[in-house]
Order: sequence, then C-alpha cells, then structure tokens
Amino acid sequence: MTGSLHEECGIFGAFGNAGVPLQSVLYYGLFALQHRGQESSGIAASNGTDIKCHKAMGLVSEVFSTDTLEKFGSPVAAIGHNRYSTTGSSVAGNAQPLVLHYAGGSFSICHNGNLTNCDEVKKALEGQGSIFHTTVDSEVIAQLIARESNRGVKTVDAVRAVVDSIRGGYAFLLMYKDRLIAVRDPHGIKPLCMGRLGDAVLFSSESCALSAVGAEFVRDIKPGEMVTVDETGMRSEMIADNCSCAKCVFEYIYFARADSRMDGISVYESRMRAGALLARQHPVEADCVIGVPESGIDAAMGYSEESGIPYVKGFVKNGYVGRTFIKPSQELREQAVRIKLNPISEAVAGKRVVMIDDSIVRGTTIANLVRMLRQAGATEVHVRISAPPFLFPCFYGTDVPSKENLIACNNTIEQIRQMIGADTLGYLDVKSLAQMLGEEGHGFCDACFTGDYPEQIPSD
Amino acid sequence: MTGSLHEECGIFGAFGNAGVPLQSVLYYGLFALQHRGQESSGIAASNGTDIKCHKAMGLVSEVFSTDTLEKFGSPVAAIGHNRYSTTGSSVAGNAQPLVLHYAGGSFSICHNGNLTNCDEVKKALEGQGSIFHTTVDSEVIAQLIARESNRGVKTVDAVRAVVDSIRGGYAFLLMYKDRLIAVRDPHGIKPLCMGRLGDAVLFSSESCALSAVGAEFVRDIKPGEMVTVDETGMRSEMIADNCSCAKCVFEYIYFARADSRMDGISVYESRMRAGALLARQHPVEADCVIGVPESGIDAAMGYSEESGIPYVKGFVKNGYVGRTFIKPSQELREQAVRIKLNPISEAVAGKRVVMIDDSIVRGTTIANLVRMLRQAGATEVHVRISAPPFLFPCFYGTDVPSKENLIACNNTIEQIRQMIGADTLGYLDVKSLAQMLGEEGHGFCDACFTGDYPEQIPSD
Amino acid sequence: MTGSLHEECGIFGAFGNAGVPLQSVLYYGLFALQHRGQESSGIAASNGTDIKCHKAMGLVSEVFSTDTLEKFGSPVAAIGHNRYSTTGSSVAGNAQPLVLHYAGGSFSICHNGNLTNCDEVKKALEGQGSIFHTTVDSEVIAQLIARESNRGVKTVDAVRAVVDSIRGGYAFLLMYKDRLIAVRDPHGIKPLCMGRLGDAVLFSSESCALSAVGAEFVRDIKPGEMVTVDETGMRSEMIADNCSCAKCVFEYIYFARADSRMDGISVYESRMRAGALLARQHPVEADCVIGVPESGIDAAMGYSEESGIPYVKGFVKNGYVGRTFIKPSQELREQAVRIKLNPISEAVAGKRVVMIDDSIVRGTTIANLVRMLRQAGATEVHVRISAPPFLFPCFYGTDVPSKENLIACNNTIEQIRQMIGADTLGYLDVKSLAQMLGEEGHGFCDACFTGDYPEQIPSD
Amino acid sequence: MTGSLHEECGIFGAFGNAGVPLQSVLYYGLFALQHRGQESSGIAASNGTDIKCHKAMGLVSEVFSTDTLEKFGSPVAAIGHNRYSTTGSSVAGNAQPLVLHYAGGSFSICHNGNLTNCDEVKKALEGQGSIFHTTVDSEVIAQLIARESNRGVKTVDAVRAVVDSIRGGYAFLLMYKDRLIAVRDPHGIKPLCMGRLGDAVLFSSESCALSAVGAEFVRDIKPGEMVTVDETGMRSEMIADNCSCAKCVFEYIYFARADSRMDGISVYESRMRAGALLARQHPVEADCVIGVPESGIDAAMGYSEESGIPYVKGFVKNGYVGRTFIKPSQELREQAVRIKLNPISEAVAGKRVVMIDDSIVRGTTIANLVRMLRQAGATEVHVRISAPPFLFPCFYGTDVPSKENLIACNNTIEQIRQMIGADTLGYLDVKSLAQMLGEEGHGFCDACFTGDYPEQIPSD
Repeated sequence: MTGSLHEECGIFGAFGNAGVPLQSVLYYGLFALQHRGQESSGIAASNGTDIKCHKAMGLVSEVFSTDTLEKFGSPVAAIGHNRYSTTGSSVAGNAQPLVLHYAGGSFSICHNGNLTNCDEVKKALEGQGSIFHTTVDSEVIAQLIARESNRGVKTVDAVRAVVDSIRGGYAFLLMYKDRLIAVRDPHGIKPLCMGRLGDAVLFSSESCALSAVGAEFVRDIKPGEMVTVDETGMRSEMIADNCSCAKCVFEYIYFARADSRMDGISVYESRMRAGALLARQHPVEADCVIGVPESGIDAAMGYSEESGIPYVKGFVKNGYVGRTFIKPSQELREQAVRIKLNPISEAVAGKRVVMIDDSIVRGTTIANLVRMLRQAGATEVHVRISAPPFLFPCFYGTDVPSKENLIACNNTIEQIRQMIGADTLGYLDVKSLAQMLGEEGHGFCDACFTGDYPEQIPSD
Repeated sequence: MTGSLHEECGIFGAFGNAGVPLQSVLYYGLFALQHRGQESSGIAASNGTDIKCHKAMGLVSEVFSTDTLEKFGSPVAAIGHNRYSTTGSSVAGNAQPLVLHYAGGSFSICHNGNLTNCDEVKKALEGQGSIFHTTVDSEVIAQLIARESNRGVKTVDAVRAVVDSIRGGYAFLLMYKDRLIAVRDPHGIKPLCMGRLGDAVLFSSESCALSAVGAEFVRDIKPGEMVTVDETGMRSEMIADNCSCAKCVFEYIYFARADSRMDGISVYESRMRAGALLARQHPVEADCVIGVPESGIDAAMGYSEESGIPYVKGFVKNGYVGRTFIKPSQELREQAVRIKLNPISEAVAGKRVVMIDDSIVRGTTIANLVRMLRQAGATEVHVRISAPPFLFPCFYGTDVPSKENLIACNNTIEQIRQMIGADTLGYLDVKSLAQMLGEEGHGFCDACFTGDYPEQIPSD
Repeated sequence: MTGSLHEECGIFGAFGNAGVPLQSVLYYGLFALQHRGQESSGIAASNGTDIKCHKAMGLVSEVFSTDTLEKFGSPVAAIGHNRYSTTGSSVAGNAQPLVLHYAGGSFSICHNGNLTNCDEVKKALEGQGSIFHTTVDSEVIAQLIARESNRGVKTVDAVRAVVDSIRGGYAFLLMYKDRLIAVRDPHGIKPLCMGRLGDAVLFSSESCALSAVGAEFVRDIKPGEMVTVDETGMRSEMIADNCSCAKCVFEYIYFARADSRMDGISVYESRMRAGALLARQHPVEADCVIGVPESGIDAAMGYSEESGIPYVKGFVKNGYVGRTFIKPSQELREQAVRIKLNPISEAVAGKRVVMIDDSIVRGTTIANLVRMLRQAGATEVHVRISAPPFLFPCFYGTDVPSKENLIACNNTIEQIRQMIGADTLGYLDVKSLAQMLGEEGHGFCDACFTGDYPEQIPSD
Repeated sequence: MTGSLHEECGIFGAFGNAGVPLQSVLYYGLFALQHRGQESSGIAASNGTDIKCHKAMGLVSEVFSTDTLEKFGSPVAAIGHNRYSTTGSSVAGNAQPLVLHYAGGSFSICHNGNLTNCDEVKKALEGQGSIFHTTVDSEVIAQLIARESNRGVKTVDAVRAVVDSIRGGYAFLLMYKDRLIAVRDPHGIKPLCMGRLGDAVLFSSESCALSAVGAEFVRDIKPGEMVTVDETGMRSEMIADNCSCAKCVFEYIYFARADSRMDGISVYESRMRAGALLARQHPVEADCVIGVPESGIDAAMGYSEESGIPYVKGFVKNGYVGRTFIKPSQELREQAVRIKLNPISEAVAGKRVVMIDDSIVRGTTIANLVRMLRQAGATEVHVRISAPPFLFPCFYGTDVPSKENLIACNNTIEQIRQMIGADTLGYLDVKSLAQMLGEEGHGFCDACFTGDYPEQIPSD
C-alpha cells in the first residue's frame, strides 16, 4: 500500500540487566519499530530512584543523539514509543512516554491503541477534578491508575479496575521507578510480546524489535494479561474476566514487519498465503506478477508461487523521501507517484501484468500505478488486492479515512475497476482471512471489512 | 552584578482588540521582559474557542518565528512567559504557559514567583488523586483552580480559595478561551501592572514591556487583587483578606529594567538614590566613579552626582555572549571575566577609583574586577555596594545561593574587603532601603538582608 | 551489496522552457539520483544574466527547502550534483556545482568521475599561476577551460583541448549564463544521457531521473561527445579523436537504479541475466533463492528463473537509517548487521538457501549474513556473487578499498568460502560479463576484475 | 549611532606557543572583535603541514562549537575573521578566511578593508587566466600573491609587488603552513596591531582583542609594513615606498571598541574629547546630557564634563536582538525604535535634554528618538553630533549609503534640524577632528566628511 492508512504507534520496554545499556536496547528496539510511527519518538528511563524522559518530533535517529542517550545514565528500566504521523493532530505535547507524579510517586506510561469510551471516561475523571495536559489516551489511563492507586489498592487491582472501565484496543507499558508492567487489552486487539536479553525482560509491539536487539523471543502477552517485572522476578496476572482473542487482522495484511511473528503467526507467511488464496479466487492468464512496494510484495510472491506466473520486480521505490521532502507542486502533480515509485519498463513491457497491493483506500494512487504500467508497455493490468474491501471505520487505533473517502463504500467492484483503469480487479474474500492466518487463525478482528466489532464502539 | 542571582520569570498577557495582532504584542512584550528569564519562552493564545500554545527552550527571538506566530491566527486573548536559566532544573517540560483541560473546559496559566507551601499543597492534591506532569508551581495553582471550579463555584471564588490556600510571592495570569485573569499575591511580593493598547487590556511584570509595545500604562495590580477582562469589560475584585504591601526590594536594586516603574516607584530613580545614599554613608576621596555593567551603572551615577566625583565609563561589556558561547577552559579561566568585561585603562589609570556594584554574592567576580582595575593602573579601588549584604535566602522566587556560598554570611565586611582586594568596602545600610524607594517606599520585603519574612516560609 | 563501494556522484542539468520551474525539475531529478551520492547536494542556476548557487552537506531533501528553491527565480538553465559520502574527505568546501568567474564571464561546473592525471595537470596549472580553492577534479577541469577560453578560442575548441589533456573517466556539465554543455569522456566510462521535457533539454547520469520528472528519454551522450544547448537550439560535436566505448560494467552490477537504461542496456535486465548466468555456472540443489537487498535482489530473481528454485524474500531491510543514526557500539557490534537486515526465519528455516549478492569486498558483512541465516534455521547456505571477484582498484571514480582490504586479492575462493562460512561459493566469471550486458555488451570497462584499464592510470 | 553604518570586518591571527591552544585564543579574540562584523565567522589553522578551515554564517558563538574547535588539533598558526552583515551581498561563499592551493603549496588569507582598483586588478588577472570563486577582495590579493610567488620571488617581494599594484585601505593576514604574515596598507587606513601571549605573536584589528585573551599589546603595525613570524622569529619589512598615515577617523568615532587603543590613541579618550569639543562649539543651556547607546555615550560624558551639565542615562537598550529577531511589521513600525531603545522618563521628564549621537545617516532613527524624548516629557531636545556631517562615500571599506540617502548631502543643517524635530542641532566641525585625536592626531583620513581622499578612488 502506498499511503493513507496509519498505525497508532509502537511501544518497547526493558527491565533488568541486559548486559548492554538499556537506552541502547531501547534505541535499536524503537528503530526496528519505526514503521509503526514516524511522527515523534521518546524514551523514559528510571535509574531506580528517578525517571528521566526525552522525546521530540521526528524519527528515532533524529530524536536521539549519543548525548541524549548518555544523559539517561545507567537505567534499570526504560520504556519507549514511536508515534505515527498525520497532518492534523500532530503536536509536540502529545509525544509519549508521559511522565506523571502523584501521591504514590512517579511513573511513566506509553501506549499503542485507542480507547472507544475515552470521552466518557475523561468526562467522568474531569467531573472528579482531573486535569489533563494532553489529548492522548495514555493520559486517561494514567489518571485512572493514579486515582485507583490512591485508594490504597495494589497496582494489580488498580490496573484491573482500569481495564474494567476502559474499552477499546490497546497495549500499554507502565514504568515505576523500580518495576515495569505490560498490559494487553482483554481482546488482544493490539499486539504485545515479551523477550529476554541477558537477564533483562523486554516487551515489544512486534517480535522484529526483539530480534533486532539480539534478544530471544519468549512469548506473546495474552489478551487481558498483565505482566509485572521487578527485582524479585516476573509474574503474570489475568486482569480481565471475559478475555477472548480478537487480534487485528490488518497487522498481518499491512502494518507489521514481515519478519515479525505475532500470536503464533508469521506475518510473512500470512502474506504469502493471502497471495496464494487470491490466486485461487481470482486466477487470470498473465505473464508476470508484481507487487506494490513494500507491503504488496510478499503477497505477490505468494500469488506467483500458487499460480505459476513468474514474479518480477515491477517498481523501483525511492526510499529517500524524508520529513523535509518537498511535495510536488501542481505542475508536477502528475509526476507525484512516479517520484516515489517508477515502473521498470523492461519487466512489464509487452506483458500481461498482475499487480498485487494490500488495499485500495481512495483509489487515486492505484489508478496512477495502473496508468504508469500501461505507459511502460504493459498490455493488460490485472489488479489483485490481498484483503477484502474496506467498508467500516476502525475504532481501535487505525487511522482509516471516513466512509465518504473509502472507495469501496461508495462503488461496486466493477465501478472501482473502471475508476482505477484495471482490466480485472479481484479482492480477497472475507472468508479467506482465517485461512490466511493459518492454524492459529481463529480469533481475530476483521471489523474494518465486516463491521463486526469485537469491542464496544463509540456511541456517536 | 555579574551573574549568580536570577529572577524567576516574566509574564505578559493581552485581551481584546489591540489594533495589531495579539501575538505580535506578546512577542515584543516578552522580548522587553527577556532580562527576567532567558531559558525558555512560550505563548498560549485563544481564538475564542480553542487554545494553542507554542513554547521551547531559548530566547524569545529563538523560540518564535514568523511561521509559529502566524499559526496562532487571530487571537482574542494571549498570555506569555519567559523562564529564567539555571543549569540544574532546566527541562523543556517545565516551560510555560501550561495548557490544561478539565471539566469546565480548557485554560492556560503562566506565573512568576514561588509558593512556599508548594510541597504541602501538592501532597494534599495528590492525596486527592491529582497527577502532575511538571514540577512547576504553576501546575499546583492550576490544579487547585480546576478543583475549586469543579465544585461549581464561580471563578472568582475559586481563585479566592486558591489564594487562601497558597503561600509565597507570585503573580499569575489565567486565560480561559474568552477571558483573561490577572492575580497578584496578597503581599504584592511579585510585580504586575496593567496597560492599554487600543481597546485591549494588557498585563505585564514590568511597565517597560507596555512601553515597548506602545501601550499606555494604566496602573499596578494591587496586592491581593484579581482583575478579570472579558468581552463585557474589566472588573477588579479583592480576593484576600489580609493584604499588605511587601514588594520585593531587589526588583529595584537589580532585577527590573531601569525604564520600568513599579508600584509608583521608578527603578531608575531608586538606583540613583541608592548611589547617592551610598555616597553619604561611605564617602571616600577619589578621582572617578565607575559602575559594573549593567546594573551598577545607575547607582554609580547617583554616587557621582552626590559626591561630586566624576562618573566615567570603567568597563566595556561584550554583549554577544549567547547560549552557545563556549565558556573559557581551565587555561583561560584567568581571562573569564575579562572576556565579558574589559576595563578601559585610559579611564582609570593613575586614578583613585570608586567602583559600584549592586551586590556581592560569592565574591570571586568582584575580586577579579578589582584586580583588573589595578592592572589597568588604578591606584586605589574603593568598592561600594548599592544594597546591604545578602544574609538570608529568598523563598519567593529569587535564586540566591545557599548560605555556605554567600560571602557575607561567613565573613565580616573587613574580611570581604580583604578577599576582594579592595582598598575600602562599603555597603548600603538596611535603614536606607526605605529612602532608596522614596515616598512610596513603605511596605517592601527586604528579607534577603534582614531575615524578616513577610510571608510564611517553608518549614524545613 | 551492503556498503563499502561508492559511486562518485550523480549530475543533472536542464536548459530551456520545461513548462515547470527548472529548479523543481532539478530537485526531483537529483532526488532520483540520490543513490549515487548522499554526502552533499547542490544546484546552480542561471536566470540569463546571473548564476546563483545553493549547496550544502546532506540529502537533496535536507539541502533544499521551498525557500531556497524559490530564491533561484525563473532560471533558463540549471545544473545539479549529488556527492557521495565517505568519512575521510568529506568537507563542505568540496560540494558541487562550483561557480567560477574569469575573463569571459561566469560559469558553473559539476562532474561525475575521476581524472587519472589530475595531479600532473594541477601541477602544470599551478606552475602557470593557477590557484585552487578545492580538491575536486571539477576545479581542474574548470581552470583548464577558463585558461583555454582566455586564449580567445571558441568554447568547443577549449573543451576539445581540455579533453585532450585530461585522462580518466568523467561526465561533466558546464553552464554559462545562456547555455548548457554536456561532455562525456572519450571512453564513455561514466554514463550521461539526454532527455526532453516540454521545450527543455535535460542531461542526467541515469535515465531514471528523466523518467522521475516526466521527461522523455532521447539518447545517450556518445563517448567523446559534447552537446551544447542554447537559445538557438542544440548541436553535437565530437571532441576527441580516439573514442571507444568502455562503459563501466559496475554501473549495471551495482551502482545504477534498476529502472535506468544506459547505453542501450537495461540495468534490470542485465542483473536478471547475471543471475541466470550464475545459475548456469554455479548450479546447486537448493530449496530457495534469496537476494541481499537492494542490489542482490534482481540477480536473485534471475537465478531463480533460470534454476527453477523458488525466489523468496530472505531479509527485511530497515530503510530508516539516516545521517544521524547512531552506529551500534562495541556491545551491540554483533547486532550491527541485524539492525539493518533481519532474516525472515519462516522463509529460510529448514531450507537449503542460495543467497545472491553482487560483490564481496571485505567479507565481514556477508559472513554475518550467512551466520544469521543459519541461526534462522537454514540448513545450507550457498553464496553466489553476480560479479567476478574484485582484484584491482578503480581509478575512474569508484571508491574501492585498497588491495590489503579486498578479500579476493589475498585469498582463494575456497578460503573466502571458509571465511564467510558458506557451504559453497560461486562468482560470475569474467567471460560472462559481455553476455550479462547482452547485445550492446561490447565495449565496457571491467578493469576492477581484470586489471585491463581502458585509460591511462596514475603513474604511482 | 543606531544602525546604517557598517565596518568591513575584523581579523585576528596567532603564531607560536601561546601556552593555550591557538584555536581558543582565536575564538576569544574573534569574540572580542564581534562588533566589527556579525554576518559570518571563520578560522583557518595550520598544524605545520596542513591547513584546516571552518567558517559559516553567524556569530562567533554560533559558528564554533567545542567539537569544531577540537578538530583543529594543535595548530602552530591560525587566522580568523568576522564579516559584517548587510542584507544584499551576504552569501556563505564569501565567508573568510579563504584557503588556496597553488604551486608553492597552500596558504590562507583573511582581510579587512576594500580595494579601490579591485575591478581593474581582477580584470587584469582574469585576462591572464585567473579564475575566481568568490567576489571578495581577499581572493584578488591571494591570486596576486600566488602569481608573484610563482615567478620564484621571495614572499616579501611578492607582497611588495602586490602592495604596489593594489589601491585602497586594507589590512590582511597571510598564513602559510609554517609562518604568519601581517600586512597593513601604505596609508594605514585600516588598523592592525601586534601582541604577545606566552611565546606566541598575535595580530588583531583592535587591541581590545589582545586584552580579552590576556595578551600583552606590543605595538601597531606601521602603514606599509609587513611583519613575518615563523619558527626563527619575527621580522619587519617596509614594503611600500610612499607610506603616510591616513588612519580612518571613523574608527575612533564609531567603529572601534572604547577599550581599544589604535595608533597610539585611546578610542575612549578621543570620544570623550569629541564630546568636550562639541560642548565648546555648540554650547546650550540644558538640564542633562544623554548619549545614544552605545557609541554616543562616551561623547555624552565628554560633553557633560566640559559643560558641567549632568550626564544621565537617557535610554535603556534591549541587547537581546539576535539574528532571528522578527522585525516589527507595518502595524508596529512606529514602535520599531522603541523596541530596541526606550527612554527613561524619570531621567528626562521636565528637562532640557542634550542628546549626543555620533552621526546622522538617513535621519529617521534620530527623529524617532527625539520624538520619544518629547513624549517622555523632555521640554527641549538639543541634538549634538560628535562628528561632522557625512557628505562623501567611503571607498575603503565602510558601507555608507549613497548620496541620495545621506541626509546631509541634500539638506542644510537647519533643514535637518527641522526634519529630526530638534530644538537645536550641532555637528562637530571638521577642524576639530585633529584635536579629537589628540597628540597623535596628525595623519588621518576624514574623506567621508571632506571628500579629501588619501588614496586612489574608483574611476567610475
């Protein structure tokens, strides 16, 4: 896919003696999660008595320098966060982790996901006197936890009460000066896993970040599970009553890195399977299969393998687009897509091409790609989408455009085919999603395709 | 004085139609208050429905660009803040104004001063569930106000309750989306005045900032007064019962700009008078009087006028020292003072010199100045200080070193004279402070000289 | 390939009415050539009377802003340059284009390549009084041209004389206030092609940049050709007597973008062919073929197609490594490669893997990749290199390490195999290079493999 | 004076063992010369074999960091430069020092001043094949020197020949890898002096910079003198035949720092004398004398001393105006002056004020100051200028506006008085300039007042 959909962040945490400075582990861990958010990045670290935080707008490599990392000293615990980038709500004040001070001391929080009853909870808290500094859900969770803790209950009970009162999809990390807590929502909508590096316990949104820092993958955090790590060791508690598994299927289709394994399922393999399923459902006579970089490529290889149609490289992607890149102006608008993705004429000229992407959001980008392929000499362009059509908004943290802007909400597949100028168009059907996920494929959220929400959605 | 003492900030606010964009008024107003704080700067502005804030580490001219100012749109109200610079506690998160969201909506606050019962109040608030994001007093005030407001009382009563529960010296500005409130502590320790530009009402720590933006000075805010400005006009309410005037005398001696007038007293004139009083109390036969730039110069002219000894320019100050200036290393330590202040040999060579400064804190800088004057050919150096010796800490917002580091706490005047290498040394006596302030000179705080605190000080 | 070899820059120029501002064309053209150099970037543009230049260290997207582009006004001609990044000699002063002033007026130059007799020519020029500001070859060419022009000869004769006196591989662009000249060395070692956008003539190191700006590819500049464009049109002159074609074969193997076509040969196709040839020369029984991103991937697909062994994605590359990225310290050195490239276990576990890369320079990186694949579960790792072993330095502008550091200079292939830990190792043989290039494959430089230099090399 | 006139730079050099790293000496030396140029700053240093250079736009404190200084290693020689700031011609490429490479090796140059026959010399050089990279005079001097040196003559003869062929006012420093040369023009128009720090010899535009680094002032360089320092020691040679002293009188009036001593004359004393002379020539009955900061203040004190009218501080200057300061927009234009300089009402209200400035260029600023004083309550404002009226352009390096913009070229003194709104107006007369300079006051250039140029001026 080439734009338009955004994940709501990546989180990473560490507690204990990793054999290397924890801030380095955090740095490279967050770097491996960069694809989950490019707007801002931050690390909060505790040296056992004190919590320091550094965060700013920008990529991990822009936000941190050797200097800023050194200022953390020798942390015993650390949590970090990458936030995704949209134009609207991006303000420095919303960068995470947050550090908060309350009667019980100080703690830090970072989170991935979205609360669907955030406004109600916030209003209730405000009614009880709470004051908010930011507009991020993390602060709502933090205020709830502090409020519960203030009643004198143990942290686990505080978290249990919080989880009981919030709805949505989320995974969050809580760091006190001497312990680290990881929590995953009762439906496991958002991913979170655990690893080990030396004697340190790590938590990460995706296993690729464990791998990147040389850590061993231990296991996924279970839906409704809270894991606490401190000097005395690690313990797990189930903090919700009605847990079920409703992991986000779009993590496999698009968000996650191909080398991650989530809830027992390889992202790479699920994409390959999606391509294969697509080949069976929407076969076509063609000369080559290409994928739209990056996320369409794995499915393209699956389609190729299943169909026997050779996979070739259809596009060269210019990877140097950075934050300060100047968007093409009106005069070069026509070129805008080509500046990022340019077709390889030699690979497609004179050929019937199957082009695989993982979604069609507004349809404009894919229409440009189809046109570019024809200009490059493709005689036919058959578009295959390795997911069902987007029809419903996501309330759990994925930034999907409103229905007016979702092409599939307002057009039949034939109409879409005409709009994007493809010879044929085929989507993966909803029933195939379970097969795509494989043996562990029961229990997932496909609400964006079906409207079948596993968790309360906002009333308005 | 050349370093060592620091004010705790300057504040500036505006409400209404000034005829020019309010953000410009704020920018130049804060620029005129830059001497009160150079660490960070910020502006929060309301367009009537929404509050936006921009703040960062750095000088006013570094923090704001045409772009950042334009993003405020067309504000109906705005408040701004300059924070002072110390090495230790300077973190981006403590920059002001703060913007907070609570049941009653959003508001913004910025403040100058220090609460002496901050820890107790904070602890009490935390006990009731409050969570803090920063370590600045402003947030304590803000949380109190929101808490009171939540009880359904009117803002004036909320502020009254807050003022009733906090102790210390402070002036703060509260901005709601459609009104602006200015509050000065019941003892008037910290300064705050009001002005008018077009149809807009302005508030400022010092009158020089009103002058700088072309506004008319209206009056000082009274101790214990709260002034509210909104679309319906302006109204004043007394919100404390036992008000008295205990304005900080050190504002006149050192902090304020010479062109400011505070509580009816001209800063310039008070410095001139201090010099004249000093001349009477500590006369000496000499050939010239010089002042240590900048703050010693006015008193030097007063000394000259009274004594008849000609005033000459003793030092050239290098005004280009900026944030990134590299401090002289060990090898050039000897030169450190001279790099900032260099004596004019021709003005002092062969002469008996009276050198006026406004304080001696540690004594090292003034010892260097005396030595430099002798090297430049001065035959005698008589040091005169236009204030009494520092003996007590300030708890109301002035960053005075601890007693161990205050030279006057640990040495007799004769010992100090020897340490700084002066021929004679004379301080203004405490009794003269009232005279220094002139006709309006009743009611001021001189606790740093006398230990006579007008307001509760911290228990520990 | 994963590091170690560097191209010496990309150049791009434009003259005439492109229908869009020339500076935009330059910006996106240079952006498409970013892979040829990431150290510094610059544009010089003439408005018909005056030449302005903006250049700085950094990527195209970092060096230029909307502001800096606007300052060029409405150019009639423009040239631009990307410089490659090495640690040693990278200084701001060596950024290009250069702008020079001489008796005949002002002109600007940028160039790609290396002069092999640069020191002699420079010494001779200095002997005649020339003064140099930089250490780049471009200045030597510029001084020669100015010197010749000063004799009153026509530009074409000046360039002819210059080409006669310099040796090496180069392509350069000369911009006078009212014309643009493109020159390619007599052996065509460095690439240069021409395009058309609206009424403007463009020159580019690679055709992919023409494509990126929506221009039409016209033709390659011939070895020893000089093309002049001005208001009266375009004309071509041959400026060298003994021209031959010795285009750099490494452009096809590694440097150029896959969507470029150079001297009639598709880079993509040549890489596919290299993979296919490799499959024939070094077949192996295996379960999958993978490529080392980015440049090994095309050859891997060629190997797969020829051998029938399925191509799979072996590695995920983290593309967010930027200029300020902190290199892993000693403790995480082991991880250094994995932070950039992480294997996909599911793709290789339990499999006999053929891994294709385009070169082995020092051998350390590839040894890490082999080890990582085994850790990921590969049962066998067969390394195939889509080029012959590096044995000789390049004197024409490619930054190859010295012989001591070239693994193939000091070890047999069997020794290298052992050092990198592969089960088998196979290089493409030298004889296959012509086949790799295809029908137009006569006339190329393979000196880095054979020591057979088409052009004078430095005497020392 | 408050703007409008600009010096053309400050230079500073050092050779030998200063006991502290030479780059530190240069840093603080240039810092002390910051008033002579704020546009760009640079240092070139030789470690005995190699010359490194760092320069950039900005103040000394912005251009250099601990890092950039450390990169110079342990220099044996170094030269540095501050360039002044104007809007038009300010480009990074013109920053100094320049480093050049020619047959005889490498050398670096920086210079203060202006060549009046620059265009002719440049044209002649270009006719002989020279190519220029910059538009600064330094490069012309450098090319001449290299050209002469190439003829095999000794450096002193090369410099002699260069000095013979150039006209104007200048002082320059030449650094070869193992020696440092200081040259002052035959008329001594531009200042240059020598100092000693440890075993190192220093050169500086002004003695204040010697003082700032703790060096001892040795003597001024004589007009037409060349001083060479290398390992064998120091030697002086006269390199021009018709030397005379025509030092720039405006250095004393405005440019130089008050603590500098130039050609035997104290800048401070000459300003005091100017004030005294002015008091005798233009006496007036008044209550106080004030000076326009900074440069008018010394003359004001001289006026006060001579007239007996008390000197008071009339204005507070805001010293925080930096490079990124946003200029007041149209709406606040009226305020523009007041934002920088604000009168102290208490000092002037109800008084007849004498206001001293050192020049009137366009007249707008001084008109604003007069108006501000009246608004502040001054009953009369008598303007006194401590120099004669500006009537002629300077061709030796001072950036004076063109005649159309010089108020005195187009108006009588009475007209000017009316335009600026003063009660009376008096200028120092031309005859007093010699007295102002005192005993050493023979031999100076006052061409900007008299049109009597000591050196060739440009033909057009």
